[in-house]
Amino acid sequence: MNRIIFIIIIGLFSQLATSQHTLSKKYNLMPWPQEIQENNSKFKIKETLTLVILGKDSEGRVQKAATKFLRRLAERTGVFIDTGFPVKNPKAAIKIDFQTVSDLTIHQDESYRLNIKNDEVLIQAKTDVGALRALETLLQLAMHTNSENYFPGVTVQDTPRFVWRGLMIDVARHFQPIAVIKRNLDAMASVKLNVFHWHLTDDQGFRVESNTYPKLQELASDGLYYTQAQIKDIVKYASDLGIRVIPEFDVPGHASALLTAYPELGSKDNYKYSIERYAGVFNPTLNPIKEETYVFLENLFTEIAPLFPDAYFHIGGDENEGKHWTENKEIEKFKKQQQLKTNHDLQTFFNIRLEKILKKLGKKLMGWDEIMTPTMPTTAVIHSWRGTNEGLQSSTLIEAAKKGYNTVLSNGYYIDRLLSVKHHYTVDPIGDAVLTKEERTRILGAEATMWSELVTPLTIDSRIWPRTAAIAERYWSAKEVNNIDDMLRRLEKVSLYLEELGITHIRNKDVILRNMTKGKDISSLTTLSNICEPLKVYSRNKGGTEYKSFSPFTLFADACVVDAKDAVIFNKNTAKFTDTNDIKSYSIINAYLVRWTENHEAFLEISKNPILQPLKPLSKNLAAVSELLHTSLQTKKITQEEVDQCKNDIKQLTKPFADTELVIVDALQKLLFYCEAKYLIKQ
Amino acid sequence: MNRIIFIIIIGLFSQLATSQHTLSKKYNLMPWPQEIQENNSKFKIKETLTLVILGKDSEGRVQKAATKFLRRLAERTGVFIDTGFPVKNPKAAIKIDFQTVSDLTIHQDESYRLNIKNDEVLIQAKTDVGALRALETLLQLAMHTNSENYFPGVTVQDTPRFVWRGLMIDVARHFQPIAVIKRNLDAMASVKLNVFHWHLTDDQGFRVESNTYPKLQELASDGLYYTQAQIKDIVKYASDLGIRVIPEFDVPGHASALLTAYPELGSKDNYKYSIERYAGVFNPTLNPIKEETYVFLENLFTEIAPLFPDAYFHIGGDENEGKHWTENKEIEKFKKQQQLKTNHDLQTFFNIRLEKILKKLGKKLMGWDEIMTPTMPTTAVIHSWRGTNEGLQSSTLIEAAKKGYNTVLSNGYYIDRLLSVKHHYTVDPIGDAVLTKEERTRILGAEATMWSELVTPLTIDSRIWPRTAAIAERYWSAKEVNNIDDMLRRLEKVSLYLEELGITHIRNKDVILRNMTKGKDISSLTTLSNICEPLKVYSRNKGGTEYKSFSPFTLFADACVVDAKDAVIFNKNTAKFTDTNDIKSYSIINAYLVRWTENHEAFLEISKNPILQPLKPLSKNLAAVSELLHTSLQTKKITQEEVDQCKNDIKQLTKPFADTELVIVDALQKLLFYCEAKYLIKQ
Repeated sequence: MNRIIFIIIIGLFSQLATSQHTLSKKYNLMPWPQEIQENNSKFKIKETLTLVILGKDSEGRVQKAATKFLRRLAERTGVFIDTGFPVKNPKAAIKIDFQTVSDLTIHQDESYRLNIKNDEVLIQAKTDVGALRALETLLQLAMHTNSENYFPGVTVQDTPRFVWRGLMIDVARHFQPIAVIKRNLDAMASVKLNVFHWHLTDDQGFRVESNTYPKLQELASDGLYYTQAQIKDIVKYASDLGIRVIPEFDVPGHASALLTAYPELGSKDNYKYSIERYAGVFNPTLNPIKEETYVFLENLFTEIAPLFPDAYFHIGGDENEGKHWTENKEIEKFKKQQQLKTNHDLQTFFNIRLEKILKKLGKKLMGWDEIMTPTMPTTAVIHSWRGTNEGLQSSTLIEAAKKGYNTVLSNGYYIDRLLSVKHHYTVDPIGDAVLTKEERTRILGAEATMWSELVTPLTIDSRIWPRTAAIAERYWSAKEVNNIDDMLRRLEKVSLYLEELGITHIRNKDVILRNMTKGKDISSLTTLSNICEPLKVYSRNKGGTEYKSFSPFTLFADACVVDAKDAVIFNKNTAKFTDTNDIKSYSIINAYLVRWTENHEAFLEISKNPILQPLKPLSKNLAAVSELLHTSLQTKKITQEEVDQCKNDIKQLTKPFADTELVIVDALQKLLFYCEAKYLIKQ
Repeated sequence: MNRIIFIIIIGLFSQLATSQHTLSKKYNLMPWPQEIQENNSKFKIKETLTLVILGKDSEGRVQKAATKFLRRLAERTGVFIDTGFPVKNPKAAIKIDFQTVSDLTIHQDESYRLNIKNDEVLIQAKTDVGALRALETLLQLAMHTNSENYFPGVTVQDTPRFVWRGLMIDVARHFQPIAVIKRNLDAMASVKLNVFHWHLTDDQGFRVESNTYPKLQELASDGLYYTQAQIKDIVKYASDLGIRVIPEFDVPGHASALLTAYPELGSKDNYKYSIERYAGVFNPTLNPIKEETYVFLENLFTEIAPLFPDAYFHIGGDENEGKHWTENKEIEKFKKQQQLKTNHDLQTFFNIRLEKILKKLGKKLMGWDEIMTPTMPTTAVIHSWRGTNEGLQSSTLIEAAKKGYNTVLSNGYYIDRLLSVKHHYTVDPIGDAVLTKEERTRILGAEATMWSELVTPLTIDSRIWPRTAAIAERYWSAKEVNNIDDMLRRLEKVSLYLEELGITHIRNKDVILRNMTKGKDISSLTTLSNICEPLKVYSRNKGGTEYKSFSPFTLFADACVVDAKDAVIFNKNTAKFTDTNDIKSYSIINAYLVRWTENHEAFLEISKNPILQPLKPLSKNLAAVSELLHTSLQTKKITQEEVDQCKNDIKQLTKPFADTELVIVDALQKLLFYCEAKYLIKQ
């Protein structure tokens, strides 16, 4: 290569990289697009704005999305857009063009080009779904000055990194009504997720109406299930958003509810199956050696499968220890006859039969990674969920791809573990793995998983969002888009856009707090909740027996969220102050310490209520520690007695309170060390 | 009568009256029951609480309600009730007994008796629906000390004053999804309303799926309609709550949407009918002289009527000026032939034909009071909506009852007029009218009406609630239950109970404000919104042409609510202070004046946004007036110049800002008069 050209190219690249970084501070896009360039123009959002669909919109997806786009734009900006529907006039200012209607398979094309100029916005895409993705980008670009709303002049060229970008919602542990599903589908589409994995059955409930086996809804759902009409409605709703729906019917384990309805299919005779009320891994398991089991599943799937047009069908297959198999002599005998050495081999036997049933129905079998046994055919799709937390060296994803399976990753994206958004954002599906082109192609993508043991319709949104928006960026955007501060800045804006779509992650916090104070002033609880996070990694419900499915989820922990906002600020400033004595940080810290000192009195005012009693020691010790640190930092003095007292109080604060943890404890500790090191009065 | 006995009886009565008044300060019941007595016991709400249904619950209503009761009780109190479903054990602590299952007609018995003792709660009712009403009373009685939750020992004997206690929701002007309807049904049941009047069609949309006439949903709904499965679901949901559903198909006027789909049924040939986007009274009207019109309606109603098991069927019939009739020569000719003098006579001709169709379908015709013409048979039910606002001397209710019609009142209960709860609460359906027993019986009850020109799913709850809870009390409780302060105190609590049921009247305010500030601090807007109310009596949308159905309803006015809470306090205290120089009132006033003075700076911080510009003069003038009044009250001085300036500023504040009115203007004026009278410095 000519050296000069080479230098120019390198120059262009680094310029592009810099400019991308500058742009990502300016525009609230998430996921960040593959390419974006400014063009010095400005499209004003005015009453006269019109929009035309140029592509042949035979599915009606763009008509719906464009109409919603006009509503959302009007509602966000307050502009009274005079023409509330797409027009037929090809000269309309916003033009949406696309070539074909997507078939909504994993190979659908979602790429698009968006060009915003002074008097025209042009969207071009291969498919209608690509056009939908572009509309979401456009909406995120809406900006304003003091006096006008506008789209900035940019050209965006975009396409996803992974074809499978999903969110799983478990509706078995806690049923989630249609409205919850729909608003989450809207939110998913807004951040370009394209797979809704619907975990429909588990020990705690079977949530689908069956005409063939009506006892499923009658006896195994507590009356909380989706009718087939509702399922069709959801699938259509998702399709309109360019989202595929993958149903999951978890077998042969996680079957307590199913076996409550049809105990004759269980692995233990005369066992009293009942809908499970606790969380955990349970023993009720389908009997894999009874022909009736396969007849049942074939009939059921034959009835259910047509409701779900997608080619993929998830059969769960996880966490089956086979305890009831081992306890059943007939099953043990069968294993010997069939030379199935372990229960895992028996499960593979079961899975292979299932795959044949599904194949007849035109479906591809997908299952959690336990199904990946040596004899399992590579036609199955492996859903990788286990990793280091389960004692493995890494996730099973790369192994699956190398073994020839198509595969999807969820390890690292278990949002119900309530870890920081940073954690999930930094999990790259492929990471540094060295893969052949074929192996890389087999990694379809990834899914965030919202297990619902500890969430209800009141709280589920605050467990999914906004973190899943950042995860969606991980799935869509280039691997190199990984600046955390930048992501956090954009996420704050995107969080508000999610609220527009009806997501309740912000608004329902106060609902819980108002119930706790019975209408009294909630501000002291708000103050506490902004530095407390719900216990992580399932420690809130150790052993699964503290909470039943019908226990109250209207407690302090339910009002708290991950990445507690005041804690984030306080911890950051404490680190800065103790490292560099930064004065601005000091004043921020100081304001917090004063607030927390004074908060206890306000808390006592409103806390005459049993539901608030568990918070009293937290509030009290926090006030004591804050007051002491505040005074010490102000007076630049601290006695040994005070240090000891403060250490003791901080120790109290390390304990969980009301199923939450105070996530500023380390920072308080750090401040105490600072005071002790600098201001200790030698006596 | 023996004089001593007479005195004792009088004594008992006055004692009862006093004690009722004392009790209503103690218990958060709404509607207030007919009888309540304390019995000095206390039923503790503990983990071990169990509940049994003793009556034969063949419809499953009580099972559902009791299960929900357990959830709601756990969620409100935070008590981990260990048994989450009704048990079979007749010794369970809460016993629910009833004799029969309600047929859900207007004559159903909803009475109940509730007896709370130390270790037992006993509910007794004639019907399952009566038992449901009792469960709501019980839930409202839940109280707590610092350390425990309990039901107070009381005996309640209760029955409604009116058999028809309704809420109408208009889903035509703005479509309301299933989730909105369901949560409002829950809320209705919680305050013992028993009729959901579903205004399903109007100029702006036809919201019901028809298989016979599919163009109705295809061309007349913008894709926003209920499927028949969804309608069945809602009707069942309502039935489970003991709520009857009355559908309204508004004919022959209010027919723009219907005629968009089937223009051949219109009164004007070659007229280009289209779905109406504005609000108001429009001319498109069914053609009453075409046989096809009746064939259409008969076919449609034959298809639709079975979805609604209730005997009553509302045909609207309001606001038909008959302009298109007069303009149609054939129709004029027909009128002459049939000796129908006026268009009202022609409409009666139409209504009588309709009544025959409905009768065949087993339905009773109900219509707005325009249908009450001299020739209309008394088999029709008159829905009285017009009154003094429409130039009448009083509502048409008493007239209808006297003429022999069964009748329901809505005049005085138009909650979309955005008047104070006090206004609606003081409207008694019968008032001082002198009626015979028969006439009284014909007054079935009343309905609050939520017309939806200016509400969306985001805001509708805040327009219905909490005011409708007080209205529900007017319909259920004795006429003598009419103390406004007492009602307001209880309403504040009931408002929180409504929030538990998913009603968004409180939470969605901040959603709107967050959108307006784009995530910046909303407190300055909150301050303003707590003293501003949306323009009343349809003056927000004069002539119906400012807002189209797809205009943004995410504006400041949409965040504001009736009975703005700080205004209520400020106005009350200003009155007290200017009358009596009350010091406590002064300090409250003073705190508000300081807050409003300082608020402007905070407002300027966040207002760099087009959507907030209309509020700037409000914020600024309010700050100026507040500062001046504050200073004058403090220094006990005011100059003529200041008085003039302040008068001028107050004058500015009397204008609407951003479709709201500042509802403290009179109080500010009063304070200025006070200062002027007392502190004017003679120069």
